[in-house]
Amino acid sequence: MKLASLKQGRDGQLVVVSKDLTRYAEATHIAPTLQAALDDWDLVAPKLAALANDVEIGSVPTKRFHEHDCESPLPRAYQWADGSAYINHVELVRKARGAEVPESFYSDPLMYQGGSDSFLGPRDNIPLGDKAWGLDFEAEVCVVTGDVPMGIDAKSALDQVKLIMICNDVSLRGLIPNELAKGFGFFQSKPSSAFSPVAVTPDELGDAWKDGKLHLPMLSTYNGKPFGKPECDVDMTFDFGTLVAHAAKTRPLCAGTIIGSGTISNRDPDGGAGKPVADGGLGYSCIAEIRMIETIRDGKPATSFMDIGDNIRIEVKDKAGHTVFGAIEQDVVKA
Amino acid sequence: MKLASLKQGRDGQLVVVSKDLTRYAEATHIAPTLQAALDDWDLVAPKLAALANDVEIGSVPTKRFHEHDCESPLPRAYQWADGSAYINHVELVRKARGAEVPESFYSDPLMYQGGSDSFLGPRDNIPLGDKAWGLDFEAEVCVVTGDVPMGIDAKSALDQVKLIMICNDVSLRGLIPNELAKGFGFFQSKPSSAFSPVAVTPDELGDAWKDGKLHLPMLSTYNGKPFGKPECDVDMTFDFGTLVAHAAKTRPLCAGTIIGSGTISNRDPDGGAGKPVADGGLGYSCIAEIRMIETIRDGKPATSFMDIGDNIRIEVKDKAGHTVFGAIEQDVVKA
Repeated sequence: MKLASLKQGRDGQLVVVSKDLTRYAEATHIAPTLQAALDDWDLVAPKLAALANDVEIGSVPTKRFHEHDCESPLPRAYQWADGSAYINHVELVRKARGAEVPESFYSDPLMYQGGSDSFLGPRDNIPLGDKAWGLDFEAEVCVVTGDVPMGIDAKSALDQVKLIMICNDVSLRGLIPNELAKGFGFFQSKPSSAFSPVAVTPDELGDAWKDGKLHLPMLSTYNGKPFGKPECDVDMTFDFGTLVAHAAKTRPLCAGTIIGSGTISNRDPDGGAGKPVADGGLGYSCIAEIRMIETIRDGKPATSFMDIGDNIRIEVKDKAGHTVFGAIEQDVVKA
Repeated sequence: MKLASLKQGRDGQLVVVSKDLTRYAEATHIAPTLQAALDDWDLVAPKLAALANDVEIGSVPTKRFHEHDCESPLPRAYQWADGSAYINHVELVRKARGAEVPESFYSDPLMYQGGSDSFLGPRDNIPLGDKAWGLDFEAEVCVVTGDVPMGIDAKSALDQVKLIMICNDVSLRGLIPNELAKGFGFFQSKPSSAFSPVAVTPDELGDAWKDGKLHLPMLSTYNGKPFGKPECDVDMTFDFGTLVAHAAKTRPLCAGTIIGSGTISNRDPDGGAGKPVADGGLGYSCIAEIRMIETIRDGKPATSFMDIGDNIRIEVKDKAGHTVFGAIEQDVVKA
């Protein structure tokens, strides 16, 4: 099934959306919010699934679904922890500044604790305070978990994946170097992220969800031009089971925890760093990456970070070309 | 007024507690949970204050209040961001490993994004998976904010402080070096924290809340012996207004955001690093700090981190000796 939170109050109004994202039925009589549904998932999910079936066969009244009416499925969450599972991205970051990737990075996932109290909606503008902050998008896959006990193994952790979404992990590249140098990780450099209009259960994805990975390409369109189309299952060093287990090593995770994959990034078929879409490559899921390619190739970056008026659209389509999660599409505006 | 969340469901049952922490009245008819109260604070707070007055004068039925029946006031929160406002602590960490404190640390606060989805109750055991993780407590002051707009100044930010609590920011020292070396900040090294039985409004503290600081000593008792009694307002380089404004520089903060001070740490009156309580000093608010003193003095630490069966009690008393927030008191148990 596919679930969304229409804009209403702080936590939105829970609705069940048709597979083709054209219609929805209200679901607040089953659970008032998506967080409430996740809090009691084993009891609530079958009822939502029955409603989803009714929506498909047309046996309940439905209304027209508009993606721009949506909050992120969890407009605010108790946890947002973002991994960096695509080592190609990490290798590029390091290569661009002439540093090696530590061996441990191939067995021990990178993950940071993100702010989860004030997400943007999938069609909300991104407020930018200062161009020097170096605004960038990052197209990612993420999962929403049930309750995960401390110390869980990766295989069992995968059973706790209840929903899958995509994400624009908004980043302020200009603030990252100073912040990471302080040693406490990202904070000001990771402002509010945005998630796809709908969250989707694993069964709904069929063959496209396997081994804890999404087997579809991530499509990023920047100012109307194709920017990236890497495959989400390729070069993903850590699957979602491993990422969830990593997060739960020293403490339990509450239902509604969101775990991200990090920026999707594929190597070239020849093992190279990846070419732009315009040059016949799969492109990139963030501006930082094309800047690294430019730096490695030309000694300095040519592409600028985002400015007022720029637009980013992030979407995943299935093999038949239908949108799966709806599209994140955001304009940058002055804060 | 003083508010608490009695253990019940995921988010507890909101109650108003008498000033002396002996009695409480249920407040769920006003707001079901503390988060719900914070979501609508301007409307709800006056009603809770009226109930608090009724509790004091005995005009409503009350029940006996037991601190061990409490969850943390927010059993789970949308944000927990912890500063490191006591530079003495940072100076000691650096000195023990022979490093300098960067000049910027005196003007730009250190702050990390903490996990907020699964707090421990103030009397809950601390589960430890492995002694090698190096379990430590950290006694801190923290504030709960209302909605804070992006880009707020420090003075206005202080007006958004709705509640004050104390905290045991549980830390796994053995996991910190590797984790910080990865560059993404704390994650596994900061498991679930615990907060005081009650959260207190600024007005309730009178003269003890001034200039964005708590003007009382933080009392830590480790395995029954006094371990620390530093003054919370002394050597606090950044007041809470500055810390909240730092957190809100690039994004708004949702009501119910918890901002921490970091480990309370005072210099000696002679400017030295601080002596143990047993030697006539003010002691420490974490084990790491006494280990640093030992390392600076003897070349190696003598005090061990916490193990199964160890007990930590953290409390603040007012000038008359009455507990202000109730006590955090936790035993370490095998996970």
